[in-house]
Formats: sequence, structure tokens, C-alpha cells
Amino acid sequence: MKTEEINGLTKVYAIIGDPISAVRSPAAMNAEFARLGENVVMIAIHVAPADLKTVWAAFTKMKNLDGIIVTMPHKAAICDLVDEIGTNAQVVGAANAVKRCPDGTWAADMFDGIGFVEGMKSQGHTLKGRSIFQSGAGSAGTAVAVALAQESISKLVISDIDKAREQLAVDRIRQAFPALNIKAGLIDEGPFDIAINATALGMKADDLLPFDPSKLPETTLVADVITKPEITTLLQKASLTGHAIHPGTHMHRGQVTALMRYFGFESVR
Amino acid sequence: MKTEEINGLTKVYAIIGDPISAVRSPAAMNAEFARLGENVVMIAIHVAPADLKTVWAAFTKMKNLDGIIVTMPHKAAICDLVDEIGTNAQVVGAANAVKRCPDGTWAADMFDGIGFVEGMKSQGHTLKGRSIFQSGAGSAGTAVAVALAQESISKLVISDIDKAREQLAVDRIRQAFPALNIKAGLIDEGPFDIAINATALGMKADDLLPFDPSKLPETTLVADVITKPEITTLLQKASLTGHAIHPGTHMHRGQVTALMRYFGFESVR
Repeated sequence: MKTEEINGLTKVYAIIGDPISAVRSPAAMNAEFARLGENVVMIAIHVAPADLKTVWAAFTKMKNLDGIIVTMPHKAAICDLVDEIGTNAQVVGAANAVKRCPDGTWAADMFDGIGFVEGMKSQGHTLKGRSIFQSGAGSAGTAVAVALAQESISKLVISDIDKAREQLAVDRIRQAFPALNIKAGLIDEGPFDIAINATALGMKADDLLPFDPSKLPETTLVADVITKPEITTLLQKASLTGHAIHPGTHMHRGQVTALMRYFGFESVR
Repeated sequence: MKTEEINGLTKVYAIIGDPISAVRSPAAMNAEFARLGENVVMIAIHVAPADLKTVWAAFTKMKNLDGIIVTMPHKAAICDLVDEIGTNAQVVGAANAVKRCPDGTWAADMFDGIGFVEGMKSQGHTLKGRSIFQSGAGSAGTAVAVALAQESISKLVISDIDKAREQLAVDRIRQAFPALNIKAGLIDEGPFDIAINATALGMKADDLLPFDPSKLPETTLVADVITKPEITTLLQKASLTGHAIHPGTHMHRGQVTALMRYFGFESVR
């Protein structure tokens, strides 16, 4: 869709953040809207933390604006402004998408982890019954772990360099999903079917490895959440040692799929 | 520009109105932004009168939103919300565009009439020194008259079926431009160099004529503000009686040019 085709019937979605310059959701979501032939456009709006409430109040009054993607630093604060919070957002304590419900109320949920799960499924990887090691218990890591917790996995071992954060994530997920086999631990507590990097390590060329893939059996799928570079040093090494790999770009695309569904658009390819 | 090219650096402009479905500014303005290679997009936002203040408060906080086109029913109310009001908006008592100034304050002005003047100039028609008859003293008519008043015309005679409204428009313009030769009157008080329809007559096929062009000398240019149909019955008849004609579409394009300039974009063709 060309911007010249935007008219008074165009539905508007926004992504808000501060800074906003690097967001890629408008490109990804607008490509989907165009592919589906929907008269919908997503724009990026630069909103400072102090202005979130003022801008939120207006969003609820804009009759042709039905959803918002929320990025840093608004992901936690937005939870206090909506009427209803989904399971993932509740456990993570942050949301990254908000929508107007048919009854006029506003709901929020967190799709960082759902995107990872969606991306795994898109590549034919089964999660049910799998034992999983995950490095990283920050906000993205917690979101991934919460989404995994809902996929009937057999075991989840979480590791983080910050042991307090590691324990906090485990405790929160255990409280929300009491039946889940989850613990804080290390990569040598395997064997694992899947090992996931959910840290920021790998974005820079000289980053340490989040874990050593040579310690894993060859059958372990090694996955990453990092999208740039698509093939991180971790994935390179894992590939060299015979592991199947799963780059973070699938999570990114998976999140677009999940968000399209959340916003009520059919996006089945 | 495709909507897929929208990113975090895209500047956002909005048009607000209620209803919003029929607005054509996004198409016209986005075509201009694209032509100039600007990373800018205009969207339409549906805002009810009761919500104008709430939405306005948010607009001022959106750091990458620099301007708003304002349509019915917000044109008068917006004047109370901005920091500075241009001459045209002051005299008309309504504005249809708002922009963020370099010092962070917000200014508003009315471009309905400026668009007419711009459209006349785009077709090579001189206004300076011309005697002009105008039918219609509603809000569009008043806006056109105010813009004409600033073009060193020699005479302006305004007629409206509502004599109170006619006199009010004349009084307001006379007060703002004391040196202007302006009066309420009829088409037979000519001769006129230019005769303008600034009423809504002509939008429907069975509308009465706003004035009879056969009463005008052949040298009188007959102009219309109506864009649909482009050639109104008035213009058809004027053409048959040998008059040069000037359809409302020029005013529409002239307004886009004037708005682009107001928003700080070079739009010289």
C-alpha cells in the first residue's frame, strides 16, 4: 500500500517508544497489512515516559486507532493503564501490545516470548515434552520462559549471570505454572533437547558466548533471540559442532504473526 | 512511499475530524511528501468534539508529530488550544491547520481562502487591482474573502442569501482590513473582473445557480470553490457565454501547496 492510498477509512496502529528511531515494527506490520489487502497503517510515535499517560488517554479517544505496540521504556508502565492484562504480561510484569476489545475495553499482553514459540513452530520444531536450557532471565528471557512454560515442555533450566534475577524469574514462573518442572541451573545439567540464548550476548562481535554449545549433545537444537547478526557466534559454533540452529529472526517474524493474530488479522501463510 | 517504508524516523502529520471517512488530505499530502522524497506520512484520526482537548494534549507530546490538519467540527475549537493564531484564522474565527513552531509553541491558521488565492495564481490569474464579486459568506466564503483582502484587490462585493451572515462577514473583514473597498451587494453592481461562487450551490445537479453569469461582461473570469463536480452548472453556463472559468479543484490543489509551505516543506513545482 502506498501512503497516497491512506484515507479517512484507514485504521491506524501505533508503536510508541523512547527512543523510537530504530523500531522495525511499522515495516514488518505494514508489510503484513499490505499482503492481506487491509486498509491499515502502523506509524511510530516518539513518547517520553512522563507523557505516556497523556498520550494513552488520547489513544483511547481516537476512534479509528485499535492497537498499539509498546516498546522501551513503556512496557511496564502500560500495564497500569489498561483494563485487562494477559497471562504472559502478568508473569513478566510488562506488556508490548495493547488492543481495543470489542466491548471497548483495552487489553495488553507480552509477545516477546510468544514470538519465540511461534518462530519455533514455524520451523517445525516441537516444544511439547522437550527439555530446555535457557541462558538469560532479563525481561526478554523471562518472556521467552513464560511462553515456553505454556507449551507442555518437560523441563526448563534457566541460567543468568545475575543470580538474583535468575531466581526471581524462576520463582515468578513457578508461581504462575506450579506444575512446570523449572529450576535455576547450568548447561551441564542436561541433556537438553533445546538450548536457547535469551541474553544480549552475540549482538557485538567480541561478546562472550552465553554458553558453550560443544558441551551439548549433537542432537540439541541451539536457538538464539538475537536478530542482528542473524547468525551469532553462538550459532556459528553450534553449527560447526553439528547442531541444528534456529536464529532470532524467526522469533521476530513469529512475533509479527502473533501480533497480527492478537490485533484480529488473519495472517496464516 | 510504501507504508512498509514507514520507520522510527518517519515524521507524522494527522488530520482530525468527525466524521473522518471522506477526508482527502492524506492522499494529497502523502503524494506531495512522496514526490519530495520526505520520510513523512499523514494519517486521518477520528476525534469526537468532546475528545478534542484530550487528543490535542497528546499531540503536543508526540515528539515526531509536527502538524495537524483540522476539519469539521474542530475548526473553531482548535483556535482556543494553540499558542498563536494567524491573520486568516483570526478573521474567520476558525483554523484548519496547526503546526509546531521551531520554539516549541503551536500556531494555527486557516487555509481555505489561501488555497483559493494560491489556485488562482497557479493558473496565472492576477488578483492585484481586480474588482471581485463573491457569492457566499459562510465559513468557506469568509475564508476566501479574507484571503482576497490581502491581495491588493480594488473592490470586493459579497452576497449571501443570509443577509445577517453577509453583513457579519463584511464587517469582520472591514475591521481587519480598513483600507479594503468591501461591501455587501449584488452582481449587478459591477463590472467585475472576477466572479466567485463560494457557496455550496452546484454540488447537486438540481441546485440553483449562485449567480447568473450571463449578467457579467464576457471578460469576467468565473471561479468556483466546488470540487465535485469539477465543472459545475455555473461553470458550464459561464463557459457557454464566453467566460473564462476556474474550477474549485485549483483551490484544492492550491491549499495543498499552501499547507506544504506552512508545514515547512518546499513544494514549488
